[in-house]
Amino acid sequence: MPREITGFSNPLVKRVRSLREKKLRKREGLFLAEGLRILTEARDRGILPDMLFLANDARPHPLSDALIADVEAAGGDVVTTSADILSKISGKDNAQALVGVYRDLLTPLTDIDRTQAPIWFVAQAMRDPGNLGTLMRIGDAVGAGGVILVDDCVDPFSVETVRASMGALFTQTIAATSWGAFIAWLRSGPGMLVGTSLNTDTDYQAAHYAAPTFILIGNEARGLPEDYEQLCDQLVKIPMMGRADSLNASVAGAVMAYEVLNQQRRGKA
Amino acid sequence: MPREITGFSNPLVKRVRSLREKKLRKREGLFLAEGLRILTEARDRGILPDMLFLANDARPHPLSDALIADVEAAGGDVVTTSADILSKISGKDNAQALVGVYRDLLTPLTDIDRTQAPIWFVAQAMRDPGNLGTLMRIGDAVGAGGVILVDDCVDPFSVETVRASMGALFTQTIAATSWGAFIAWLRSGPGMLVGTSLNTDTDYQAAHYAAPTFILIGNEARGLPEDYEQLCDQLVKIPMMGRADSLNASVAGAVMAYEVLNQQRRGKA
Repeated sequence: MPREITGFSNPLVKRVRSLREKKLRKREGLFLAEGLRILTEARDRGILPDMLFLANDARPHPLSDALIADVEAAGGDVVTTSADILSKISGKDNAQALVGVYRDLLTPLTDIDRTQAPIWFVAQAMRDPGNLGTLMRIGDAVGAGGVILVDDCVDPFSVETVRASMGALFTQTIAATSWGAFIAWLRSGPGMLVGTSLNTDTDYQAAHYAAPTFILIGNEARGLPEDYEQLCDQLVKIPMMGRADSLNASVAGAVMAYEVLNQQRRGKA
Repeated sequence: MPREITGFSNPLVKRVRSLREKKLRKREGLFLAEGLRILTEARDRGILPDMLFLANDARPHPLSDALIADVEAAGGDVVTTSADILSKISGKDNAQALVGVYRDLLTPLTDIDRTQAPIWFVAQAMRDPGNLGTLMRIGDAVGAGGVILVDDCVDPFSVETVRASMGALFTQTIAATSWGAFIAWLRSGPGMLVGTSLNTDTDYQAAHYAAPTFILIGNEARGLPEDYEQLCDQLVKIPMMGRADSLNASVAGAVMAYEVLNQQRRGKA
């Protein structure tokens, strides 16, 4: 049976609320995800929260009932509370009626089986949580395996990233590593590393992408460091017909990933 | 010569700051844009701010000097002030050293010459300023003519939209209208209206896009209304290989726009 929490000063409320801060998320190894859609996405992938918070005035819904039953069966904690406390936890004025507390989903790089998917994203020093969450969502859409974070990226488990991913966080493998460790791992098996760059004349549609293709996306403001570009198997440019010289990082990722997917689809046709 | 403003309570500071609110932006017919890059983008298109605010501790820069000279020559107002007051104006902790106050750039739909560009975006009830600004940036990248806003869209001149556009706001024609007026205008000349939809089996790469192509992007949460879909010349679906059934609105716009551009590039090759 769910238990009820009514006080803002309840230690559990304080602890869960603290998960909005990266430092405390890291220390606890936990993160927050909100909303029936995202929590059901996770459940469909066999991922259940350690703790589930429900609005005590939420209308019954078969999917939330199923979620509650599964969390309780797995020995998790189900807590009902007020909409105000849920807002406090999530930092949102109109909080979702469901908030889950999940264990950190980082996968060690060496545990990744790269042959499980034809496309992988590699995000280099990506700083914007919206971009990273959107990249995860694109990864899900193109059937990518996941996102490998190199250098100092935004926290993949921040509330903003999880929201922007629309649940794709739970369908994508997420790893975080250094550039050196990534390159060493990459070269220990098959894989083509492709970077978008202004320093090439090769059109992104003129290159042939071999699976697994690793699409490298540079930092939003600075793009890829030159020595990183030199380690790519292929540099390509996305045509820019206007005045701007770059696309938003996640948009560039989408344009690249759909080209790779389209080449794969033609190969199979 | 620039004049200096030092007080937070200066009426001009208050007035300019109020332009962060949509209601007051509309009443004044003015909006804010920040940063040397974006303001220079505007200047390159012959668009100068009525008022230009500069940090009084900003380092001289040839581009900002040129901007100051042009604004003064055009009879505009150049004001130096403190970094704190600039932060107050822009609502950002680390404000850019340059803030421009521009006249509303909305173009009446009937003034648009659709044959000036092969691609146009039509955003339907787009609610997120980041999406709209990103769509403008994509429009610039693919050589689109602009973005036509239908139904209740986010303000194209909000600080957040302008920021996300990275200056593409000044390269793209922006119009706002009703769905009925848009359809009447569309059908008064050439143009193919294309919508992405789950209600079709036509792959987005299987369709042939005739110029000018109007790419219709539906509301972030609800997609396109069914009766809007029925007025499209072509409905297409972007393949989704994972669990999600949709892409972020601006990402879907980018994937569609690059397909249209690629078909045009092949046609010219």
